[in-house]
Amino acid sequence: MSALNTDLYELTMAAGYFLAGKTADVATFELSVRRLPRNRNFLVAAGLEQAVEYLLDLHFEADEIDYLRSLKQFQQTPPEFFEFLRGLRFTGDLFAMPEGTPVFPGEPLLIVRGPLVEAQLAETYLLSTMAFQTTIASKATRMVAAAEDRMVVEFGSRRAHSPGAGVLAGRAAYLAGCSGTSNTETGMRFGVPVFGTAAHSWTMAFPSEEESFRALQRLLGESTVFLIDTYDTLEGARLATRMGPPVWGVRLDSGDLVALSREVRRILDAGGLKEAKIFATNDLDEYRIAELVNAGAPIDAFGVGTQLATSGDAPSVAAIYKLVELRIGESLHYTVKLSEEKSTLPAAKQVYRYADRDVISLYNECNKEFTGEPLIRPVIIKGELLEPLPSATSIRSYAVQAIDALPAELRSLEDSAPYPVDMSQRLNALAEDVRGELLLAR
Amino acid sequence: MSALNTDLYELTMAAGYFLAGKTADVATFELSVRRLPRNRNFLVAAGLEQAVEYLLDLHFEADEIDYLRSLKQFQQTPPEFFEFLRGLRFTGDLFAMPEGTPVFPGEPLLIVRGPLVEAQLAETYLLSTMAFQTTIASKATRMVAAAEDRMVVEFGSRRAHSPGAGVLAGRAAYLAGCSGTSNTETGMRFGVPVFGTAAHSWTMAFPSEEESFRALQRLLGESTVFLIDTYDTLEGARLATRMGPPVWGVRLDSGDLVALSREVRRILDAGGLKEAKIFATNDLDEYRIAELVNAGAPIDAFGVGTQLATSGDAPSVAAIYKLVELRIGESLHYTVKLSEEKSTLPAAKQVYRYADRDVISLYNECNKEFTGEPLIRPVIIKGELLEPLPSATSIRSYAVQAIDALPAELRSLEDSAPYPVDMSQRLNALAEDVRGELLLAR
Repeated sequence: MSALNTDLYELTMAAGYFLAGKTADVATFELSVRRLPRNRNFLVAAGLEQAVEYLLDLHFEADEIDYLRSLKQFQQTPPEFFEFLRGLRFTGDLFAMPEGTPVFPGEPLLIVRGPLVEAQLAETYLLSTMAFQTTIASKATRMVAAAEDRMVVEFGSRRAHSPGAGVLAGRAAYLAGCSGTSNTETGMRFGVPVFGTAAHSWTMAFPSEEESFRALQRLLGESTVFLIDTYDTLEGARLATRMGPPVWGVRLDSGDLVALSREVRRILDAGGLKEAKIFATNDLDEYRIAELVNAGAPIDAFGVGTQLATSGDAPSVAAIYKLVELRIGESLHYTVKLSEEKSTLPAAKQVYRYADRDVISLYNECNKEFTGEPLIRPVIIKGELLEPLPSATSIRSYAVQAIDALPAELRSLEDSAPYPVDMSQRLNALAEDVRGELLLAR
Repeated sequence: MSALNTDLYELTMAAGYFLAGKTADVATFELSVRRLPRNRNFLVAAGLEQAVEYLLDLHFEADEIDYLRSLKQFQQTPPEFFEFLRGLRFTGDLFAMPEGTPVFPGEPLLIVRGPLVEAQLAETYLLSTMAFQTTIASKATRMVAAAEDRMVVEFGSRRAHSPGAGVLAGRAAYLAGCSGTSNTETGMRFGVPVFGTAAHSWTMAFPSEEESFRALQRLLGESTVFLIDTYDTLEGARLATRMGPPVWGVRLDSGDLVALSREVRRILDAGGLKEAKIFATNDLDEYRIAELVNAGAPIDAFGVGTQLATSGDAPSVAAIYKLVELRIGESLHYTVKLSEEKSTLPAAKQVYRYADRDVISLYNECNKEFTGEPLIRPVIIKGELLEPLPSATSIRSYAVQAIDALPAELRSLEDSAPYPVDMSQRLNALAEDVRGELLLAR
């Protein structure tokens, strides 16, 4: 990853802070979500591992600095700034909600505290990596809920917003409860189970469907999944029974999945393949999965592509990265934004989770009344990772349990009443003080 | 990029083709779009440069092969296959529509011809990189059209589906006519103009708005853009006039942009900043831009984020990669898919563009009646790039001219009648023959 993978204004601001002698100022930024996207009752935090990698690796290459020097925006910038960039590393702290945690608007997913330039520069990359994976994990948990006890596998790499996004979509979907992904790089990099057997082109590459099935079975044995709809689905199912075991099952990728799955199930059962499973794909989403489940379609596993890897109904989330504190020398300033529809709350925060509500407090607010579980934990201190990050598999276990602990109505596909997220008295009082002072000062 | 950045089934099929002795079979795959997404009258082809990079770089690292060997799907695969993978490179041909070409459903964006395993493996990566950039370029051209002669700048990196997608979104938006991007890596890698000055956090990091403005102006001189809505937009505009030149202009990021831009224009003009421009941002899309333009809002440039970098209203496109020909030894087989809603046409194709329609023919169909411009050109032959790819700037010039040559109604934000895309008699005849033969053979 390149340190230039950021908005130009992060770099012009860096130069400005350098020139204004503000490199020793210590800033605290919070990354949170302003509001829930449509069709979501909660979000599932994801992307922390990539955020940590970025912060630990942050540095500028010589050619990147040369490029910046060539831009018109930096023509008046003295050479000392570029020397400063050459030595820049992330030396600050990162506090975060663990990946897999259900999260609500206003709750920090990340708190970044460090020298102003370092913390500011990271904004664009952190927003993108956190918002994207959080978006996908939040979509995935709905599909997993709709599928009840059936498997959901992420198959959307080809629809993801670039091949790199496909790798991360597979990871995020798994964290939130999917059984695995088709993306092989996701499998290797993150230890996520990988799924996949053959496409229609496989069937078409052989002189007959039968020859293609035989070759697949020879290759995959009991992992074999016959894709039976290339020419005619029911004929394909009959052919599968003629092949016999070993076989995992068959895949349906077109047509009326309720009717076809029933007929196919009947053909498989009658043909001695009672153990063979039915895998369904074809533009599925959580609503379609729920319909199929509710219709009693005998489908054992769902493969979901486009709608999962792009979060089709809500492809973005209003994530923000806002300055909440600034220490200049010995004085600590709490900062807020006043503009109407985009106001922010001051100070670094903690989130306590109870069975039926969350409470957002000041981060350093010690209050015996807060018996809930504190969700924000230190991850990086003074540029050093405190402990190894959890594996994808252990994040998934935690996420499944944490999502399961939410009130049931939040896990339904219908819109629920907003989950109660209260603010502590001290946070409220501080917010009022800061706003009041700012308005007085105008 | 990793050769494992693909769906697992591409790799199981590769093993199967190897075992079936089909590595000398020569396959032709076409990448096209099945139908237009909603709100689109045409698409703008993009992503070819990244597709070419992928094909020229395709290879397996030793640890990737070790990972594959560890998977249950490959437990029955003989070691010769992994030796074969170790030596695998793309040795085939690539034909493509130049980036920036307006494209319609059924028209190939890419034709990949090569040994079956190589051409099949590339499917997932090629689909993702082509579909994503095509999606973004197609969205961008609508915003550029809505803005008429005003600038549109891509500001969506933080909302893109991963930081890597942000880099490519900036590129795709520029290709389709945007003036530039905020993504600095896009600027360096592709020579795209970069834009950006300061965020709200900049204003908040100084003891007063005035001090923040002064520091920005000292840094950026005539590139200075004051963000005036952190506390109060009109006060911010008055402060900008007190700062005086040099300044490029001011940015509005909240509130009623029509009313505010008028008042701000009045304040700037009255305060001696007649030359200063007004830059507007805040959840814009092509419809909002058109409203602002139609309302006569005195806005000189639009910065667009979320809706552009995610193509919010249509975040995916139904791109497919289908086997159309297969040469086995001396015999050439044309292949189609018959399943109802997903049928395909056989044979490699060419697209001829006329002023008012396109004609899709067989690629090798020589017909003096085809006086239109052939759009598909050879790019890679036998694994070698024929000539250097065009720069982003020259693609953009071509795209702007090619889009401008389309019938005007296609360039409107309203849905137009479908653009006529005809098929040549020979293509139609071949399609019927192949379908007929397949149905007879069942």
